[in-house]
Amino acid sequence: MNVRIEKDNIGEREIPESSYYGVNTKRALENFDLGTRSVNRKLIYEIALIKKAAAMVNHRLKKLTKDKAQAIIKACEEIIEGKFDQEFVVNALQGGAGTSTNMNVNEVAANRAIEILGGKKGDYYLIHPLNDVNMSQSTNDVYPTALRIAAIRLLRRLSYSLADLQEALQKRENEFSDVLKLGRTELMDALPMMLGQEFGAYAKGIERDRWRVYKGEERLRQINLGGTAIGTGMNASHDYIFMITDTIQELTGLGLARSDYPIDITQNNDVFVEVSGLLKACSTNLLKISNDLRLMASGPKGGLGEIELPQRQAGSTIMPGKVNPVIAEMIGQVAMKVMANDYAITLAASSGQLELNSFMPLIAESLLESLELLNQGVIIFREKCIEGIQAQKEKCRANLERSTALAAALVHHIGYDRASELAGKALRENKAIGDVLKEETTLSDSRIAEILNPWEVTKPGIPGGLEK
Amino acid sequence: MNVRIEKDNIGEREIPESSYYGVNTKRALENFDLGTRSVNRKLIYEIALIKKAAAMVNHRLKKLTKDKAQAIIKACEEIIEGKFDQEFVVNALQGGAGTSTNMNVNEVAANRAIEILGGKKGDYYLIHPLNDVNMSQSTNDVYPTALRIAAIRLLRRLSYSLADLQEALQKRENEFSDVLKLGRTELMDALPMMLGQEFGAYAKGIERDRWRVYKGEERLRQINLGGTAIGTGMNASHDYIFMITDTIQELTGLGLARSDYPIDITQNNDVFVEVSGLLKACSTNLLKISNDLRLMASGPKGGLGEIELPQRQAGSTIMPGKVNPVIAEMIGQVAMKVMANDYAITLAASSGQLELNSFMPLIAESLLESLELLNQGVIIFREKCIEGIQAQKEKCRANLERSTALAAALVHHIGYDRASELAGKALRENKAIGDVLKEETTLSDSRIAEILNPWEVTKPGIPGGLEK
Amino acid sequence: MNVRIEKDNIGEREIPESSYYGVNTKRALENFDLGTRSVNRKLIYEIALIKKAAAMVNHRLKKLTKDKAQAIIKACEEIIEGKFDQEFVVNALQGGAGTSTNMNVNEVAANRAIEILGGKKGDYYLIHPLNDVNMSQSTNDVYPTALRIAAIRLLRRLSYSLADLQEALQKRENEFSDVLKLGRTELMDALPMMLGQEFGAYAKGIERDRWRVYKGEERLRQINLGGTAIGTGMNASHDYIFMITDTIQELTGLGLARSDYPIDITQNNDVFVEVSGLLKACSTNLLKISNDLRLMASGPKGGLGEIELPQRQAGSTIMPGKVNPVIAEMIGQVAMKVMANDYAITLAASSGQLELNSFMPLIAESLLESLELLNQGVIIFREKCIEGIQAQKEKCRANLERSTALAAALVHHIGYDRASELAGKALRENKAIGDVLKEETTLSDSRIAEILNPWEVTKPGIPGGLEK
Amino acid sequence: MNVRIEKDNIGEREIPESSYYGVNTKRALENFDLGTRSVNRKLIYEIALIKKAAAMVNHRLKKLTKDKAQAIIKACEEIIEGKFDQEFVVNALQGGAGTSTNMNVNEVAANRAIEILGGKKGDYYLIHPLNDVNMSQSTNDVYPTALRIAAIRLLRRLSYSLADLQEALQKRENEFSDVLKLGRTELMDALPMMLGQEFGAYAKGIERDRWRVYKGEERLRQINLGGTAIGTGMNASHDYIFMITDTIQELTGLGLARSDYPIDITQNNDVFVEVSGLLKACSTNLLKISNDLRLMASGPKGGLGEIELPQRQAGSTIMPGKVNPVIAEMIGQVAMKVMANDYAITLAASSGQLELNSFMPLIAESLLESLELLNQGVIIFREKCIEGIQAQKEKCRANLERSTALAAALVHHIGYDRASELAGKALRENKAIGDVLKEETTLSDSRIAEILNPWEVTKPGIPGGLEK
Repeated sequence: MNVRIEKDNIGEREIPESSYYGVNTKRALENFDLGTRSVNRKLIYEIALIKKAAAMVNHRLKKLTKDKAQAIIKACEEIIEGKFDQEFVVNALQGGAGTSTNMNVNEVAANRAIEILGGKKGDYYLIHPLNDVNMSQSTNDVYPTALRIAAIRLLRRLSYSLADLQEALQKRENEFSDVLKLGRTELMDALPMMLGQEFGAYAKGIERDRWRVYKGEERLRQINLGGTAIGTGMNASHDYIFMITDTIQELTGLGLARSDYPIDITQNNDVFVEVSGLLKACSTNLLKISNDLRLMASGPKGGLGEIELPQRQAGSTIMPGKVNPVIAEMIGQVAMKVMANDYAITLAASSGQLELNSFMPLIAESLLESLELLNQGVIIFREKCIEGIQAQKEKCRANLERSTALAAALVHHIGYDRASELAGKALRENKAIGDVLKEETTLSDSRIAEILNPWEVTKPGIPGGLEK
Repeated sequence: MNVRIEKDNIGEREIPESSYYGVNTKRALENFDLGTRSVNRKLIYEIALIKKAAAMVNHRLKKLTKDKAQAIIKACEEIIEGKFDQEFVVNALQGGAGTSTNMNVNEVAANRAIEILGGKKGDYYLIHPLNDVNMSQSTNDVYPTALRIAAIRLLRRLSYSLADLQEALQKRENEFSDVLKLGRTELMDALPMMLGQEFGAYAKGIERDRWRVYKGEERLRQINLGGTAIGTGMNASHDYIFMITDTIQELTGLGLARSDYPIDITQNNDVFVEVSGLLKACSTNLLKISNDLRLMASGPKGGLGEIELPQRQAGSTIMPGKVNPVIAEMIGQVAMKVMANDYAITLAASSGQLELNSFMPLIAESLLESLELLNQGVIIFREKCIEGIQAQKEKCRANLERSTALAAALVHHIGYDRASELAGKALRENKAIGDVLKEETTLSDSRIAEILNPWEVTKPGIPGGLEK
Repeated sequence: MNVRIEKDNIGEREIPESSYYGVNTKRALENFDLGTRSVNRKLIYEIALIKKAAAMVNHRLKKLTKDKAQAIIKACEEIIEGKFDQEFVVNALQGGAGTSTNMNVNEVAANRAIEILGGKKGDYYLIHPLNDVNMSQSTNDVYPTALRIAAIRLLRRLSYSLADLQEALQKRENEFSDVLKLGRTELMDALPMMLGQEFGAYAKGIERDRWRVYKGEERLRQINLGGTAIGTGMNASHDYIFMITDTIQELTGLGLARSDYPIDITQNNDVFVEVSGLLKACSTNLLKISNDLRLMASGPKGGLGEIELPQRQAGSTIMPGKVNPVIAEMIGQVAMKVMANDYAITLAASSGQLELNSFMPLIAESLLESLELLNQGVIIFREKCIEGIQAQKEKCRANLERSTALAAALVHHIGYDRASELAGKALRENKAIGDVLKEETTLSDSRIAEILNPWEVTKPGIPGGLEK
Repeated sequence: MNVRIEKDNIGEREIPESSYYGVNTKRALENFDLGTRSVNRKLIYEIALIKKAAAMVNHRLKKLTKDKAQAIIKACEEIIEGKFDQEFVVNALQGGAGTSTNMNVNEVAANRAIEILGGKKGDYYLIHPLNDVNMSQSTNDVYPTALRIAAIRLLRRLSYSLADLQEALQKRENEFSDVLKLGRTELMDALPMMLGQEFGAYAKGIERDRWRVYKGEERLRQINLGGTAIGTGMNASHDYIFMITDTIQELTGLGLARSDYPIDITQNNDVFVEVSGLLKACSTNLLKISNDLRLMASGPKGGLGEIELPQRQAGSTIMPGKVNPVIAEMIGQVAMKVMANDYAITLAASSGQLELNSFMPLIAESLLESLELLNQGVIIFREKCIEGIQAQKEKCRANLERSTALAAALVHHIGYDRASELAGKALRENKAIGDVLKEETTLSDSRIAEILNPWEVTKPGIPGGLEK
């Protein structure tokens, strides 16, 4: 393998000739050799975008020649297109608050820009990773800004995915609006309701999630570009500070704004905890919905069997014909994972010290993973599960009729105590509540039918119309 | 002990003659004998308030006589005043989704109302706990509504307490605005800054918390009174549904609104997860601030010693004169406890099944505890810690001067590599960076003073003014 | 109110004449006025026990007169009997690593000992809280030792309670050993099994919990008495160090041992994390079992209805005759609470710094609460739920027969694919698998009965005996 | 792209001709398209090993021909060697309790075995993924067994890595055994100690971790191979059940044992929670140690500066010469991640229902990730941080001398109150405690030297020798 020698203030290192990264990345590769995942690509792309913006601004401020600026800009664009994905090798749980990731982008962009200018990798006199690519920047302003941008873009996608899920649930709500079924509280037979109402309740929860996720973006819009190392802005000129914010705004099309107190943004990470908390709230809804679906679909014959989930794959290697609710289980696990990531984010964010939080890489990794998992999971859940759900009307009706859920309709007519007695009799003797009413009361058949009309008992009001 | 006999559908129980609670409470007392805390009083009071409102509405709807209604209303008011606190005996972690707490209030209110009407406890023919006190209600609409109201009131208080804390931090920001100190990233010497800027950053975080907590109220305003058991509203008249919402709005003075889909509110608890998540975000800030204060106050002589926290109590039984940062440690533990409560709330909220969440008592207990702890903790933190903090100016200055933090100011003047060399020399030889500059460069003393002017290096821009 | 004046190094405070606590407790009361719980009494009692032991040792070492020692010992014994419970007023989430609780015990014991000697409260020249009661001790060795002792005692109790629960589950296992039912994986119809086998599996999980909890004690036996402030043992004589360990061993009857490296025990709290982790593992079993029971008991008519839980209290104020699985829900919440406490313990334990962990009060509060909740919860769960469970044999059988669970028995006889086809036909046409076999195969009735013999299919082997 | 057509009971799918996986894997690929990680390779390898064992046993039982068995065995061995890593494509968070991963291995092994027999991929009449490769197995016994084996192997490695870490810490303990420094409680100046004692305390914590991890293996040894779908063993012959356990024991060399109640092992996952809890306890130690190191290394000039961590990479792009404690930060993040994974494992394990836990893939993914991260992290932490730590003796001494830590040595000589006064004076006047003693007491210089002898005050006993 051909190598080139690069050096830093610790010493020298051999770098494979073909590698676009340099000595700082190499050190980090060795230092954080955890054998697990490298940094989320979406974070890399946004860091590259910021470097493109910085090159544009520094050129306008005459700190960077046109040639250099153009080469850097081109290199960054290629990174964003994914052409150098395999060059971003540093582990996601790196120490150093993100410095190694910033260095990795600096070095890849520099070496690619050098090539564009006709040099060969390592000719840093042509383009220097720090002096040129990183000009006017610090990891501590670049990294959190890139994380905010990446998170905002994913929040928007998730917001759309949740809107689609809400719509799919509402379609089921309408479709099943006249499928009478048993409502259960604490898993015990309670009152009649429509199957559609179950889905309506799910849609409402997801509607709130969509709104939360949509509004979550606002929490992330304040950025600290130009704050440099600790937010005081040392070594960044006033012109740069204003221009870099405008430029990144333009390049992203997002409503980013310069923080009026970058020291705050540089050290505090509560906004990521807040946003992750919103994702966690969404996860509780997804977990609840998926558990409900699995419960209602249990069977197909020996369970509740009130709905049928679309069949997606063979479920067993030993039980012929068994099909499992795999999509619901997948989204359930996604929800749990997002909750666990929230734990990591909370722990990391509360561990900041003085002017910086050393654990930003864990925050970034966890937050972006949660966003990506939720977004993909929600799309799959809708497409492969919700949209194909079918009502098992007869089983719905049978479960309801076997129960004494209609007894509550009698309270206003014969009193709580008498209703309780008759319900008990129905349970013991396995009779329908209507039949017991006929045996035990003087109510006429038509009156009984009026009171027990299941279509009425799923709506507000006194069944059988005492109110008039 | 004199007792009276009460019965339910399971059998009979002896109740102490002096007790206002009845057989259902007695059962719950036995069933949930965990030996730990009983239900949060704030939840009890709001349930009583709802029962007062229901009595008012039911009277207007002619379902309750004037005498009965007035007695119930009076009884509820006395409960809210705290006169019967000792009667609310059911454990906070009760099963039954809150039914026992609702029963407890029903029974105490009924027995007190019976006394008001001249009867004696147990004369339920005068006022019946279920038929009269609980009229038109279900635990499943009363309980979550009471929790929302209790939470909103506590959120408001917390919002004020956070505003006060923010103000106290800003006062320190101003007071310490010219105390020059060393800024640290990853605990390593970084750049100069003002001590006031530390507190400014804390104030910004708390400002966001205040805003979040203030806005959190909006998430809790939708209520499901009139939804009864599963939110469909069975057995609640249309008139009742509208009037109860208006009445509770009036009685509380809060912007509560009837949910347009009470089935949702009855089963979904994501809003509590969301609100708890906001409290958790606040906790990460409090934990970070308190850790920073403890770090900067470390010493007094053998640590950083940059600030002094007010002395609140003797710190050791073995080390004479030792004083510890006990208030900062207290708020740190409050923050951790709120994070742990968030775990409980998340777990419980995601465990709802179909039309109800059986684990609402855990949600209620955890959320109200978090709100109370945070509110009290924040007040104490401000009064007994933040307001009394003093700067140790000389130590601040000494720590800064001992470091090479000013070396970064040289980058634009002599380049990164040369600055790095001189910084290394200063470190090795224990010299001030200014002295090394004099030895090693041709810069004039006045130019050196200009570049290293510490007042300039805590603000944006190139120290020593390259920009002109 | 009559008061006495006490002073510390910060100034003076009025103490109610009737109070046994003194100025340090008073300060802590004011400083940590969180409005929530005071310190767990079990921790107080063990601290008092250590002080009794220290008085015995110091008397033998001639550092404490007989009169003083006897008075202190008597005072500590009264504290342990619970006579002064109302005097321990400091909030559980106090700062100061437990110093205030130690001070609280010192002061109450001193003032009670003073009374015993004929003085009046505040006459500290007779018995001094620090010089006499706290002699040779530091909060930092007393507090963690007391926590260990309290935890060990509760672990033992819990171990017994779990053994009883295991036994109760095994009784159900035997009782239901011939109740044939449908086994379900992922909630879908799977294979036949016996209801007893469900309970056998639960018993196995609880057996592991019992073992874990029993073995957990070993982790807590190392103590640091005599280590004083940071574990180095400064100011504690060698004689004291050996004698105090022996004495506390004798007084408790527990296998406590002197750590060979008290500096470790003083600062590291991983053993509490480990023990709490064992409680968390137990909680996952309890949560799983209670969820299963609620699921199998769902109905009674419109759900699975395979078992009936004992009825413990009326379940609804609106639905006549409804009874809920309240005990199972209670233990579920206990389990969740223990998980949340584990979060707090983990967070606090990992936040220790250098020679001490400031957040020991949160660790103590959370661990003891978890132990008490689990112990009581497990007893109640057994007595009020497990022991009264009844099988609904007919429903068990009906659910099984409605399913195609027996189809798997065919695989060895007619192949996976053909079995799959026949199962599909049975599902579609709502027929029993046996009937489909008769229609579609040439197997004799007796052979079919042999293969589908449900008693065989719940055991290892090929149903219908291919093996011979 | 050339494709072959495969079908399952849902329909047909095109499979790339080059792919070893089949239709079931393809379905899973589509169903769980989350865009994140695929299944941990270590789990795959152990599943393949079990399939190898099953082929051996089934051949000996004459259920599989020699040719088939040998081909399957060879195919499995190649999988274990990593030759087909790219064929295991199903996402780690798949639904279906691991069925898809089992299917994935079945299909790859089958197609490779087919090739070995001279067929081409898809010729399932030669070797069938289910009938042959999966013979006598169910996902529900294979998957949890594979997870146990993979976890045991990683636990062993981790145990060795922790032993090495312990040793490295003990070397520092010895090396720094005479470096006098200030001990701090609650970050405040406390008592003198040796720097070596800090490392001794860390070593003790890690010693416990090593023991825990080593013993953790025992918890995982019970396996349920032969239990098939729900643990009852239906369709697995008695001979198979015994022989498969022996065979897998032999192949792994691990002390695996057949559970006497496989139904338990099939549905309960508390052992994974227990083991993860041990990893979490280890994480609290690692987090505490790494935080302490970062604190003691803070500076280099403006912080505590008591130790120097080895320099591993340049720390800043803007601050010349800055080096950060990146390795300590890395292990801190690893610790936090392990804690978060424990959350996921706990949540998933407590969500099992009846005969199976649907969320086993999340348990497997999280547990194996924790084990791998910890193992690698601990190795790196030792090699790149602990082994290179250097004491800054002068700074250690200076911090100690500046403090009043020696005042505690006076308590036995001049009383607590007088010691407290003199300490106050020393603090106020910035004097050494020895000098104040000379001014304020009649103690001779030599007696003062004796009492304040710092070498004595780091050991048990009364400094200055009252004891004789």
